[in-house]
Amino acid sequence: MSNPTTTTTTSWINSANGHPDFPLQNLPLGIFSLNGDTARGGVAIGDQVLDIKAAVELGLFEGEAATAAKAASEASLNHFFSLSAATRKAFRAALTHLLQDGSTDKTRIEQSQASLLHPQDRCTMHLPASIGDYTDFYVGIHHANNVGKLFRPDNPLLPNYKHVPIGYHGRASSIVNTGTDITRPKGQTCPPGADAPQFGPSKRLDFELELGIWIGTGNEMGQPIPISDAPEHFAGLCLLNDWSARDIQAWEYQPLGPFLAKNFASTVSPWVITAEALEPFRTAQPARPEGDPQPLPYLLDQKDQQLGACDIQLEVLLCTEKMRNEGMAPVSISVSNSLNMYWSVAQMIAHHTVGGCNLRPGDLLGSGTISGPEPSQLGSMLELTEGGKSSIELPSGETRTFLEDGDEVILTGRCCKDGYPSIGFGECRGIIKPTV
Amino acid sequence: MSNPTTTTTTSWINSANGHPDFPLQNLPLGIFSLNGDTARGGVAIGDQVLDIKAAVELGLFEGEAATAAKAASEASLNHFFSLSAATRKAFRAALTHLLQDGSTDKTRIEQSQASLLHPQDRCTMHLPASIGDYTDFYVGIHHANNVGKLFRPDNPLLPNYKHVPIGYHGRASSIVNTGTDITRPKGQTCPPGADAPQFGPSKRLDFELELGIWIGTGNEMGQPIPISDAPEHFAGLCLLNDWSARDIQAWEYQPLGPFLAKNFASTVSPWVITAEALEPFRTAQPARPEGDPQPLPYLLDQKDQQLGACDIQLEVLLCTEKMRNEGMAPVSISVSNSLNMYWSVAQMIAHHTVGGCNLRPGDLLGSGTISGPEPSQLGSMLELTEGGKSSIELPSGETRTFLEDGDEVILTGRCCKDGYPSIGFGECRGIIKPTV
Repeated sequence: MSNPTTTTTTSWINSANGHPDFPLQNLPLGIFSLNGDTARGGVAIGDQVLDIKAAVELGLFEGEAATAAKAASEASLNHFFSLSAATRKAFRAALTHLLQDGSTDKTRIEQSQASLLHPQDRCTMHLPASIGDYTDFYVGIHHANNVGKLFRPDNPLLPNYKHVPIGYHGRASSIVNTGTDITRPKGQTCPPGADAPQFGPSKRLDFELELGIWIGTGNEMGQPIPISDAPEHFAGLCLLNDWSARDIQAWEYQPLGPFLAKNFASTVSPWVITAEALEPFRTAQPARPEGDPQPLPYLLDQKDQQLGACDIQLEVLLCTEKMRNEGMAPVSISVSNSLNMYWSVAQMIAHHTVGGCNLRPGDLLGSGTISGPEPSQLGSMLELTEGGKSSIELPSGETRTFLEDGDEVILTGRCCKDGYPSIGFGECRGIIKPTV
Repeated sequence: MSNPTTTTTTSWINSANGHPDFPLQNLPLGIFSLNGDTARGGVAIGDQVLDIKAAVELGLFEGEAATAAKAASEASLNHFFSLSAATRKAFRAALTHLLQDGSTDKTRIEQSQASLLHPQDRCTMHLPASIGDYTDFYVGIHHANNVGKLFRPDNPLLPNYKHVPIGYHGRASSIVNTGTDITRPKGQTCPPGADAPQFGPSKRLDFELELGIWIGTGNEMGQPIPISDAPEHFAGLCLLNDWSARDIQAWEYQPLGPFLAKNFASTVSPWVITAEALEPFRTAQPARPEGDPQPLPYLLDQKDQQLGACDIQLEVLLCTEKMRNEGMAPVSISVSNSLNMYWSVAQMIAHHTVGGCNLRPGDLLGSGTISGPEPSQLGSMLELTEGGKSSIELPSGETRTFLEDGDEVILTGRCCKDGYPSIGFGECRGIIKPTV
């Protein structure tokens, strides 16, 4: 369901109009609390958070939207995600009505403003949902190519890549919200030429620029989701930093894949950007170059192909401890775009369930690292420094091959389009703390 | 805490004495319901289940044991697992007192027998806990060797194997209780020599004979569990069948490990066999052959080494549809033993958390396939038929290279020792249903 009427609509909440991230056209959901009170659902609008629980108590929603609002007022969005896409969309429509210029509810809301609207900078954000299972995909084809080149210069992309949306299971328990400190992991590493492995803090700590996909309704075990139904099960996107310890990874990953190299922490941004908010930024560019193999039928949906990929501008910023101490701003070290994803969200959902695996509301899928084709568009230090061979120069005079203690990594995402308000993801940040 | 006094102690519940699986010395916990009523905790004793909820309501427990009993009476054991090992042990001690010959509570229990004791064959068993995360290890060294040989005849065991307890993340949502039908998964496969992958039902469907490890208290993120503390976090064992689609696995697993080949289903047995029940069956055999590398200090605990590995006899039985129709009993196709595990439970827990990953109560670790060194001791069809080259002959005149629709696989586990009652795991079974 597109909302063409809202393209130029403004909100009576002034800070929303022209807000680079949270205009009326975005309306992302998250879980917040204030001064340590109970966590509940909220909607970002301008520099404010609309308190869904308070709005429900004031009776601002009716019918299907009220059902959804009640679910979204809980301490996690799992119940909300479990609702049908139609019910979730009814809630979005009701929110738009409430908050747009000329809303008949404006006066009622303003009278209860103290309980209904909270300044975002006073809110503590929490994980949007209790994550049952986390799966990380590998759909950033340039990343797959770049990493492949480091290991297999002659044959970087494996034969299955253009047929299979490659994915693997990750760790749900250690997914944390933006702003959570990341402790440098200790582990086994075996430098080239060493006789035996060593144990100690990782020396090749890295970030990965990814998108996270929140699962909506989900499926019963043994009942695959056909690709044409996949949009029903897609609740929204976030930013995801899949922190990685490359030296631990290199030693442990054969033959069953990464384990401790990844499971010490992954960071997500707090707002769930809905499929409806993203819809205007889908662009019907061909999903794959001419000459690439046609996907198997279970991965092919005409409508999905026509709508195309999402055009989300992604950026990685770095701020070292020295830069913070000297009052310097974080510096951009990479810009990329979600158009570099070889497989679509619908393809990932269809593939994940085709063998019968069940997805549950609040499950999280990672896209895998989204690098672009250019040297300035790489989504990890591993790629930016060619496996540690080169280094990044920072305005503080420092250099980096991998992340040092005190470094803060900040991921951002924003959709921009002529004649349409931009919508943003908010931040996904974390500071590296030394091993204890 | 050992219970030497219970070695020869008998129960006033007659069926427990001489019971091959559930004598007084076992007392495993599970979640059951009766005629569709509310699921709650129970203890297997002989051919009965002691209803913990009813026992709590009757006031049969006091102090620390009452705290534990109340937690164990809930609809899942997660809360019980989260308690300290000391509290869980107090509950076991109280249970032993209640159920042993000469118990002062015998009369009270018998008066309420209808609500307190239920015949096991009338109980429906459920998953013991809500599983937050599932990790599968690879500690069966003969399995690693056998599978390695199929792929790399000259170099079957990778250089990291004897240093790193290799593991990878699995899927929690599709773990099911014994007796749940398993639908043959569809997926992509690419037979040797084929130009492009095909899509269809797996033709190389397999079982894997594993033990499952239930996590108790768990740790905070960033705070590794030292190996000496690992026993505190080990709540008990179960049997685990990690169903695997070998043809899907072969095509998808590079470079990030198995995904759809494993996540369509894993089956667990319903009873949690506690560390205390298993303690008499630990045997101080050297954990690794002479000449093997010494584990790094974080994986080495003197007490764990001295106690040694658990001696659990494992068996795989197969029953085809034809055999069932002809009234034939399931036939044993493999016997193995948990002594074939190269790494101990404590080593797995210490390794899993050493980089800071948090374990939560009710998380499940798989051991990986536990094969023995002999041809009759292999824990998967892949090994039993040398990758499908040979076949298994069945008493029905049928043969098998991999599993066919209608086949039932049954895993059993039992600890036996001279002068001590045997304790058993109950069954872990599932029938293969055709793809829908």
